[in-house]
Amino acid sequence: MSLIVQKFGGSSVADAESIKRVAKRIVEVRKAGNEVVVVVSAMGDTTDELLDLAKKVVPFPSGRELDMLLTAGERISMALLAMAIRSLGVEARSYTGSQAGMVTDAQHGSARIVEVSPKRVREALDDGAVAIVAGFQGFNRGTGDITTLGRGGSDTTAVALAAALGADVCEIYTDVDGIYTADPRVVSSARKLDRITSEEMLELAATGAKVLYIRAVEYARRHGVTLHVRSSFNNNEGTLVVNPIEGENVEEPIVTGVAADLSEAKITVVGVPDTPGKAAQIFTLIARTNVNIDMIVQNVSSASTGLTDISFTCPKSDAHAAMEALTAQKADIGFASLQHDDQIAKLAVVGAGMRTNAGVSAKLFTALFEAGINIEMISTSEIRISVVTRADTVNDAVRVVHTAFGLDGEVEAVVHGGTGR
Amino acid sequence: MSLIVQKFGGSSVADAESIKRVAKRIVEVRKAGNEVVVVVSAMGDTTDELLDLAKKVVPFPSGRELDMLLTAGERISMALLAMAIRSLGVEARSYTGSQAGMVTDAQHGSARIVEVSPKRVREALDDGAVAIVAGFQGFNRGTGDITTLGRGGSDTTAVALAAALGADVCEIYTDVDGIYTADPRVVSSARKLDRITSEEMLELAATGAKVLYIRAVEYARRHGVTLHVRSSFNNNEGTLVVNPIEGENVEEPIVTGVAADLSEAKITVVGVPDTPGKAAQIFTLIARTNVNIDMIVQNVSSASTGLTDISFTCPKSDAHAAMEALTAQKADIGFASLQHDDQIAKLAVVGAGMRTNAGVSAKLFTALFEAGINIEMISTSEIRISVVTRADTVNDAVRVVHTAFGLDGEVEAVVHGGTGR
Repeated sequence: MSLIVQKFGGSSVADAESIKRVAKRIVEVRKAGNEVVVVVSAMGDTTDELLDLAKKVVPFPSGRELDMLLTAGERISMALLAMAIRSLGVEARSYTGSQAGMVTDAQHGSARIVEVSPKRVREALDDGAVAIVAGFQGFNRGTGDITTLGRGGSDTTAVALAAALGADVCEIYTDVDGIYTADPRVVSSARKLDRITSEEMLELAATGAKVLYIRAVEYARRHGVTLHVRSSFNNNEGTLVVNPIEGENVEEPIVTGVAADLSEAKITVVGVPDTPGKAAQIFTLIARTNVNIDMIVQNVSSASTGLTDISFTCPKSDAHAAMEALTAQKADIGFASLQHDDQIAKLAVVGAGMRTNAGVSAKLFTALFEAGINIEMISTSEIRISVVTRADTVNDAVRVVHTAFGLDGEVEAVVHGGTGR
Repeated sequence: MSLIVQKFGGSSVADAESIKRVAKRIVEVRKAGNEVVVVVSAMGDTTDELLDLAKKVVPFPSGRELDMLLTAGERISMALLAMAIRSLGVEARSYTGSQAGMVTDAQHGSARIVEVSPKRVREALDDGAVAIVAGFQGFNRGTGDITTLGRGGSDTTAVALAAALGADVCEIYTDVDGIYTADPRVVSSARKLDRITSEEMLELAATGAKVLYIRAVEYARRHGVTLHVRSSFNNNEGTLVVNPIEGENVEEPIVTGVAADLSEAKITVVGVPDTPGKAAQIFTLIARTNVNIDMIVQNVSSASTGLTDISFTCPKSDAHAAMEALTAQKADIGFASLQHDDQIAKLAVVGAGMRTNAGVSAKLFTALFEAGINIEMISTSEIRISVVTRADTVNDAVRVVHTAFGLDGEVEAVVHGGTGR
């Protein structure tokens, strides 16, 4: 008998029919003799509809009340799912975040989990019931108030419960079959990975592969939870995200996957005096504006002018704030002008084997050069190389790189539409 | 400074605009220096929509899960109302039934309140905040599960909170101006009552005047809570439902109001042997079927046949079950046949002054006789006389009786449509 935590996103429970289908699937797993805990998101677009309703009432809703409002979404889906499971002859009980013991800090809208005490969930399992838990939500012990975990919160709920209950596996159901070597909508020869390390998954999630949220992957790695990413539309095996034991001799592929990210813009600060402390001044200012910087490149200073250019990328939605903050301090920093470019894309190759293989950058740059794709910025980590290219060439770039690293499979990938929260 | 509990039904918070209007009203009362607790129902038709959704998933949803589902309704309306109040510069905090300390028994769908511990509500008031509480819901301490109070539950929540907090008044906002001497849609000369005793209100509520739920009126009477029924569409004074102190010499009108009820059917058991125990046998059987009997009439036995007829009224929705139960026991009871009649109406005159005034029945029967309206059944309490007539004559009957008891006012009543829960 295994203890399995299953997470179903909003697109998997979008209507009554989907809920019945998911219920049937859960009942099969339970009847096979497993203990089952299910974490569920709000149905389809419920969360966005509730947000729209709030905006009609008041432009800037209070965080406490917005969390109270949004948590109604999972309450609906989890109760319906429990009903559907019971109607198939299997006992099921739904629990809110607070009933399931998801204790968080008091940061409304993006609360962090501080403790998980799933006493009632454990009791339900001991009674032979399937426990359904609302994803995305928790409560703060000090205030007694309801909180939400922010984007990707349901993934995090599932992983946190799996860790607290000592589950054998945490299955994340989504609309794709698993983690691919590249986005199958871009690279038709992309292959599904049977297995990926959590470290690689983190790099992929951070560079545009939106199947799993980075926070959930981090939590899983820290607590040794094995994730299994699979489709809610078929019974295929998906991708296991594993935590190799330190020093374990795992045969690691050099490159595991290629990801593209079109969500960032590039800002260039032109003509910055090349004196110590200028970069610090600029990035302290940006940090104060709560803009998340991703890549930074400082050009070689021109000896004749004593000036340099500093470029960085940040989310497109933050670019305006960053520009405003810099403009306000223009005289103090002493730069000449600002350039804003939102037609960029970021391409990343990820692979744990890269660590011990020096030729990866060379192969990457050569492949892009031969395809006539220009590289504008470069950034690297131990197991990742990211480059910035023009947005309109990035899909070509992904295909070229995918082939260059021998990732192409023989069958075409199948993808379903839609994403959950 | 007064402590005021205000209850707004679903039609008062049906959309974003209504919520903003209600918020403005609450803020005025708060700014006038009062402590304000607001009990709110789910928006408009939310509850029915959630019920429909449940029916699409499973024909007979589990009570526990149905309560979990339906309580999402108030969660949405209360959070939006709190946001709207805050946007007007007044601190507001919403609380679920369990956060507000509404402890109930474990009877899902129709839980009874066993304890009210509004600690967090009291703290919110002490902090100068308006407390918004979800109507209709509570939780059971033994199971830890969420419960709902059934029909009229939000009225009961408001009254129970008013009692526990020692509120000065519990205001029930609805779509009419208050309690009328008759339904203003039927009797255009109906007058709004400034004041009615809780005893009279109980009789009126039990006989078809649907402005207040009987359970809330009972609770208010038992705990000495003063109710104020008023319109959410204007600032007129409504009707006070008061609890006169025993022995207090109140000048009571003989008849306070006239109500009609079209929700019942009449069943006649024809040819019952007139032997001891037959009536007991019939009504024990009906009680076991969970059918609520209202009026009972047994005709005088015919000496020649030794047979009698027994008629009773019950909700139309229960009539089929009652007929089936009786038919199954036909041989054992020994009656000849059953008659079912759903074209009846019940008319009731209510007034605390009736107690000490013998002429009320005579005046009622005379008025109906002169108008050519036939009386089929009669039942009386200390402060109420009910008669059954044909359904198609009941509106005429109400008008005639209203006039006969001198209740007609001089201005026509104004009524808005829709009802909340």
